[in-house]
Formats: sequence, C-alpha cells, structure tokens
Amino acid sequence: MAHQQADLEPVLIMVPGVGGGQAEPRFHQADPARAQLLVTDLVATRGEGVFETLGVFDGVAMNVGPHLQRLARSAAMIDLPAPDLDLLASALDAAIAAHTAVPELTARIMMTRGVEGADAPTAWIHARTAEDYSAARRGMRVVMLDRGIPTTVAGTSPWLLAGAKTLSYAGNLAALREARRRDAEDVLYVSSDGWCLEGPTSTLLVRRGNTFTTTPTEAGVLPGTTVATVLTALEQDGRTTSRELMRPQDVLDSDGAWLLSSGRLAVPITRLDDRELPVDAELTARMNAAASGRG
Amino acid sequence: MAHQQADLEPVLIMVPGVGGGQAEPRFHQADPARAQLLVTDLVATRGEGVFETLGVFDGVAMNVGPHLQRLARSAAMIDLPAPDLDLLASALDAAIAAHTAVPELTARIMMTRGVEGADAPTAWIHARTAEDYSAARRGMRVVMLDRGIPTTVAGTSPWLLAGAKTLSYAGNLAALREARRRDAEDVLYVSSDGWCLEGPTSTLLVRRGNTFTTTPTEAGVLPGTTVATVLTALEQDGRTTSRELMRPQDVLDSDGAWLLSSGRLAVPITRLDDRELPVDAELTARMNAAASGRG
Repeated sequence: MAHQQADLEPVLIMVPGVGGGQAEPRFHQADPARAQLLVTDLVATRGEGVFETLGVFDGVAMNVGPHLQRLARSAAMIDLPAPDLDLLASALDAAIAAHTAVPELTARIMMTRGVEGADAPTAWIHARTAEDYSAARRGMRVVMLDRGIPTTVAGTSPWLLAGAKTLSYAGNLAALREARRRDAEDVLYVSSDGWCLEGPTSTLLVRRGNTFTTTPTEAGVLPGTTVATVLTALEQDGRTTSRELMRPQDVLDSDGAWLLSSGRLAVPITRLDDRELPVDAELTARMNAAASGRG
Repeated sequence: MAHQQADLEPVLIMVPGVGGGQAEPRFHQADPARAQLLVTDLVATRGEGVFETLGVFDGVAMNVGPHLQRLARSAAMIDLPAPDLDLLASALDAAIAAHTAVPELTARIMMTRGVEGADAPTAWIHARTAEDYSAARRGMRVVMLDRGIPTTVAGTSPWLLAGAKTLSYAGNLAALREARRRDAEDVLYVSSDGWCLEGPTSTLLVRRGNTFTTTPTEAGVLPGTTVATVLTALEQDGRTTSRELMRPQDVLDSDGAWLLSSGRLAVPITRLDDRELPVDAELTARMNAAASGRG
C-alpha cells in the first residue's frame, strides 16, 4: 500500500447527542484545530472514557457494527450511559464523507463521561489520513512484558477493567516505550499466571501448522474485531482456527505470529524477545486483504 | 468545618510554559466555562498525563513542595518532560489569589503530554471551593478490593506505572463505584500477594496500640503527602510510627484505621468489609488540624 500524505486536513465531528436526551443538533462538524473540550471533562481529569479506532479503506469503514458493539460493551464496563450507536454510525459516515478521499483513513470514535457534574457524555469522531504502516506490515520486533495481573481477574475483579477499551491508556503507552528501550517496536503482554495475552493496541494470532489461534476474551483481553475478520477468512481458506491460551514457549516455537489491529492490520512478528520467527509475506498479504475489505 | 458554598466561580490558570521553551506568557488566567483543550490532546486520546490535588486551607496551600516533587516523579515515570516547578508554584499562587477567599479550596495541578505531534505538554491549575467533607471526616465504610497486581511490580515492571499519579484513573473510579454497590463509600486495595495497599485516592494509616503504620512506597503505592504531615505530627505527640506492609487481618484487628488525602484529609474507617473499627474523633481532629496547617 502506497505511502500517503499525512498533512491532509483531519475531520472532527462532535456528537453531543450520544447519550440521548435533547441535544440539538445531534452532531455537527467542528474545527479540530480549535479547543473543543473543557478542562473539567472527566476524560481530562480522570481518563474516564472509552473509544474505538476504525480502519477506513477506500472510503469504506471496516467492521462498523462490531466496533460500535464493543464501544457499548466498554461503556457498560465503566458504567457510562449506553451510547446511541445509530447516531454514532451516522456521525462516522459524515466524518468519512467530509474527509478528502484517501486509500487509508483512521477514524476514532471517542466517548467520555462528560464534564464534571453535567451528567452528559462528551463524544466525537476524529478522522484523519492513516499513518504509513507499510514497514510495520513487513514485520516488527516484539518483546514480551509482564502485565502484572492473572487471566482470572476479568471474572473475579471487574473493577480492574480488563478487556475494556478505556481512555486510561497510559500504561499501554508506557509498555510501548519500554519496548523501544529494548530495541523492539511492539509488546506482547504476558499474564502473571504465565499466559500470552495481547499487545497494548493489538490482538495476538499464532500459527502452528495449519491451525491459527488467538487468545480467548475470557482471559481479560479486548475482543478483537480485525482478528475475527481474519479468522473467518482463514476458515474460508480451509485453515483451522481456535481460541485458547498459549504459553510464551508456544509462541516462540510457533510457525508464525501476528499482532492485529484495525488501522495497522496484521503485522508479522519477526523477532519475539531473542527468537526469530518465521514470516510469511504472502499469508500476511492475504490476511490484510481480508482485514481491509479488499480480499 | 462548616459547610461551604459550592457555586463560587472556579479559577483556571493555563500554563503553556510548563515544559520550558519559549511559551509567552508562561501562564495566564482563562475561562473554565470555555473549551481549552484540543480533542487531540493526548490526555483526551490516551489518558496521558499526571496530576496533583492540593488542599488549600484559609488561603494556604499545604505541602506545595512535596506535591510538586511528586508531580515531577510521576512525569518522569511516564517519560514526560520535567515540569518547571517554580512556574507551577507561581501559577498555583495566582490561582489561589484569584479565587474568592474560602476556608477550603481544592487546587488541581494537571500536566498532559500535550497535543499529538506537538511535543509540548499542556498544563493547567484548576482551583475551586472544596466539597463538603464534614460527613466523610466523621467516618466512612470501606471495602477491600483486589488490585490484581503483587507488591513486587513497582520493582520488576515499571511500565505498569504502580505508584505514578497519572490521569489514567478509570480503574480507580470503577473501584469506587464497586464500593458503592457494596454499600460502602471507599476502597482499600489489597495486592494479589495479600497485602493492604492504599485507597484509590488516599493513603492507608493504621493504629495498633501506640504505633501508627502506613504502607511503604516500595510496594507500588503513591507516596502520600498528607500521611507524611500526619506522621510527623504523631511523632511530635510521642507516638511511634512505621512504614511496613500489613495484612487485611492486621487492619481488621487494629485499634483504628484512616484513609488520608490532601483535600478530604484523614477519614476514619468506621467499617472495613463486615468489621466495625474503633473510631477516635479527637485523634482524627488532631490529625486534620495538622494536615490542614491549623494544628
């Protein structure tokens, strides 16, 4: 996929109607170069919000339904009001339509708890030309980092928000900085009970022979939208798929591993800690054709 | 302490000079009722920021130096630029001076990673009349909740940011909501290796006989500013103090326990899970006189 201009104007759509009630107009375009948020918005004072990042390929947003459903799931996990998903879908369409046509667009759907005391969520869609992911899609070096928590907390301790896509993301970015300090580009989290989980912004997919395995969401990981699309494509190709927990040694000894996300798509892991992993460029291209709706 | 009006105008001071460089003016008053933050500020897209909350009593901010030092420590833990602490202290003074005189003011010092791509932090001071904490200072019901991580992660896994006061605070608020579901008002976190840690927004202090004990910061808790003031006062009163890890049973069997923070001050725990704890109103008043600089 060709390099894209990064300086095209981003598009911002504010969605005051997201929580229902009487907001009028229910969404409107706004200037992303001007301040839009109060300092007392709970996203600014407490990281209280949820989000989704979508890949938009040749003007078509992938997996809109699953992303919106996951946003609603994350919102419920932090007791936000249920978002108006139809309204968000319309606002997303408006953002994509307002953006200059580009091969790859990244659209973020953001929803916060709103201004302190106001009891009405803040929401917006921000669409911009995607970064150039062509190098990443050839492969990345990844390190395994302890996530500190066991796979059981999603069941026992929901207040830890394992598997919720919240805007309290500082830990994920700290992990990515640690990866760079270790001469790597991304992270595979390992639970304190010794299972491979996910990346800070991605889902794990591992090939062993003809079988492709990802982490079950019960382990407290985010239910991946891109991995679901890719698994379906692999099944159509006659591959076997499964959702089960894997040990670090399983991934180190695998026939290939990927980190999947909506904008960057499937990125093969070229090196995991000190181990070189097999990379299959053709298979990666097949996954990414499916994940971008070009398959 | 008397009930205070909550509708006095809050004061906002933006501090564009916080990261050094050429920002001019280095801080200025702004309208908190108007939007001040871009949607691409990394605090809004990733919860990337650090903060401090100070209590200001009769116009005097308590523990300004320790709070600023802790802000710098948190900033370093997430690789933010070192904040200009003298500038922040001046901006804090300006915020307090601009606010109507009230007995208790809460001042927040906020610093984010700034707008995506801009490489300059965003910072502000927000001062407002404190909530009415008089009921809380008579006592609160507290439940113990699993924090999921062991006391060792601060040493082994710094990317988990244990002990950093970041704006990625959604988990702490989720824990407080869980407390309300359990008919309690606050939380005492317990580590996965079974030690009492701290509250989501407070420090633990436990009395056993004449000895007052708080959690050591090496366990991955925030170094409390208020507890330091209170421990000093207790030592002046001839009490013994210590910093050591305690088991839940130690606190349940104690002669009293408190959660300490800068605005709410020392709050006695009246009930921990199902156990009633002894409450000493006079001793609590002594702590709060010290913690508010009125001792």
